[in-house]
Amino acid sequence: MVTSTTQPANDENRQWYVAEVPTTPGIRLERACFGQRVAPRPEPGPGEVLIRNHYFACDPMNHAWVKGLEARFTAIPPGGVMRGGVAGRVVESRHPDFAIGDAVTGFLDWADYTLSDGSDYTGTPLQRVPADLPLATGLATLGMTGHCAYLGMFDIGRPKPGDTVVVSGAGGAIGTVALQLARLSGCRTIGIAGGDRKCRFLRDSLGADATIDYRRESVPERLQALCPQGVDVFFDNVGGPVLDAVLARLARGARVVICGGIAGYNSDVPGLQNHLMLAIQGASMAGFFYFDHVHRLAEANDRLAGWLRSGALQEVLDVAEGFDAVPDAALGQFAGHNLGKQLVRITDAS
Amino acid sequence: MVTSTTQPANDENRQWYVAEVPTTPGIRLERACFGQRVAPRPEPGPGEVLIRNHYFACDPMNHAWVKGLEARFTAIPPGGVMRGGVAGRVVESRHPDFAIGDAVTGFLDWADYTLSDGSDYTGTPLQRVPADLPLATGLATLGMTGHCAYLGMFDIGRPKPGDTVVVSGAGGAIGTVALQLARLSGCRTIGIAGGDRKCRFLRDSLGADATIDYRRESVPERLQALCPQGVDVFFDNVGGPVLDAVLARLARGARVVICGGIAGYNSDVPGLQNHLMLAIQGASMAGFFYFDHVHRLAEANDRLAGWLRSGALQEVLDVAEGFDAVPDAALGQFAGHNLGKQLVRITDAS
Repeated sequence: MVTSTTQPANDENRQWYVAEVPTTPGIRLERACFGQRVAPRPEPGPGEVLIRNHYFACDPMNHAWVKGLEARFTAIPPGGVMRGGVAGRVVESRHPDFAIGDAVTGFLDWADYTLSDGSDYTGTPLQRVPADLPLATGLATLGMTGHCAYLGMFDIGRPKPGDTVVVSGAGGAIGTVALQLARLSGCRTIGIAGGDRKCRFLRDSLGADATIDYRRESVPERLQALCPQGVDVFFDNVGGPVLDAVLARLARGARVVICGGIAGYNSDVPGLQNHLMLAIQGASMAGFFYFDHVHRLAEANDRLAGWLRSGALQEVLDVAEGFDAVPDAALGQFAGHNLGKQLVRITDAS
Repeated sequence: MVTSTTQPANDENRQWYVAEVPTTPGIRLERACFGQRVAPRPEPGPGEVLIRNHYFACDPMNHAWVKGLEARFTAIPPGGVMRGGVAGRVVESRHPDFAIGDAVTGFLDWADYTLSDGSDYTGTPLQRVPADLPLATGLATLGMTGHCAYLGMFDIGRPKPGDTVVVSGAGGAIGTVALQLARLSGCRTIGIAGGDRKCRFLRDSLGADATIDYRRESVPERLQALCPQGVDVFFDNVGGPVLDAVLARLARGARVVICGGIAGYNSDVPGLQNHLMLAIQGASMAGFFYFDHVHRLAEANDRLAGWLRSGALQEVLDVAEGFDAVPDAALGQFAGHNLGKQLVRITDAS
């Protein structure tokens, strides 16, 4: 049932499109990039489905669609409809594998509706959201967010019980999952986040053993106090001086997971000075490109869904309401406004 | 037979000692650190051998003995005899495992003579130099230099035939070995070095497919031209802007070996900006601490010695002559003066 004033009129399809190509360097979007317009509601052709979009996923990947990413993504041409993570339900189907009401996710149009031939803009088949879980979970724990935490923590971080695991951006989308995966692995967990609200949440609700508020506290001093034996696993979402401070405290054989570097997306941060600690401590630092690991996602989904169902893993969502909320939500993550996964809900349905 | 004027008088033992504790930050030594004095020639007690030292090995590790390295080495106290790689021959033995004339290496005194109980200052047993190979080889290809190239290239770099392998500091001690190991692995090899003399040597004598002279050429531009498909393995001895430039050109699944960072030892270099390429390309960057891998050295020595004997691997030595040459040789490596392994020969014997 659709009742919200945020709904489009019949036969209309509101779209966010690339109004201006961003000119600033780095992984960055600007308000001027976002243009809104209304187009006719599309009609599915043979083999196609029409998806009513319910949620958009805000994450740093949004920039890659708009600006392109060398050798990985072609930029959306100016005037093109913006793309990103979308969760929705099939409302018309001329595709044998999809029925009306099916809950799906994919990298699709940031619009009221998307047409699909069964796959998304990356060529990946539309993903199904399990019927017993909320639609939004398909963009959070069972979406790119949860997958990045899973692949980064288990394939690169390889935590062992008793390890000291530090997570930066721990109050963010991936950080809230990564920290919990370390806790589930029997590790001592330390979350680095900005502000007392996030730090308290990490300790009180997600079971972090300790937190560092990088806005109020000296990260190097707190790391020294909290990690006298060094850091065994660092799951890094921010880069910059926080990464440099943790490199200086690595334990022997430590593993550093480079998942993101949001500190470097929006400003000129100082470069890393302490990479030689990798040699001194026999440590490694590695990243992964999400789209190279799609063959692992069934395994990740099975385990993540299991932990969600048992209550071992808590999903943390930060949901902005309404179609017009997109630019604020998409830009706010670079300022660390969100606690958990930033979504925009554009309908009243769930 | 001892004839050189560089020889000590009978019963004398010239020593280099820590005259001033260096106060500059970073991995750095200064001329004022080096003091020379004469002590009596030591006498071996029960279970000890007296070694006549022939060669000293100059490498960045020298600083770690003098200044200490957190959680790894205690600094030599001021006035203490300097330590470093030494190759010599047993001249007196009260140890059942050593006979007069035995060729040995270890981390020992930088003096004419060293006493040993059969092990060196790291607690490692004295290493034997094979009788068919020069004594100096025990400090170069079969010493820490060759071992670092071997462990870094094969354990971390893991080159496959056809890979594009870039080596920085390619004209240095470890670089000359690492580049040849990549060539022996069937890879396309690109050496980065300073100056035409080194670059020509790498191409003409060591078989490098191409070189980049970082003093005259733009490293980013040359990398783009030489590596259109990206860099599969980067063996880094220098850090700083060269490392940053290669990070920007990594191929998917690339491996970066952090072996050294001499660019950062002696000056304030800009920090790394491109570490996020590890995530974009699913790449890894790792180092190793030599002393954690002593269990691997027998294997390394067997293979390296085999390649030396067959002529597949060429040993590149830069030998300074005479006891007084120590400070210039030890400091000159930070300015890139040496081509290959920098040694100081303090006797006329070989």
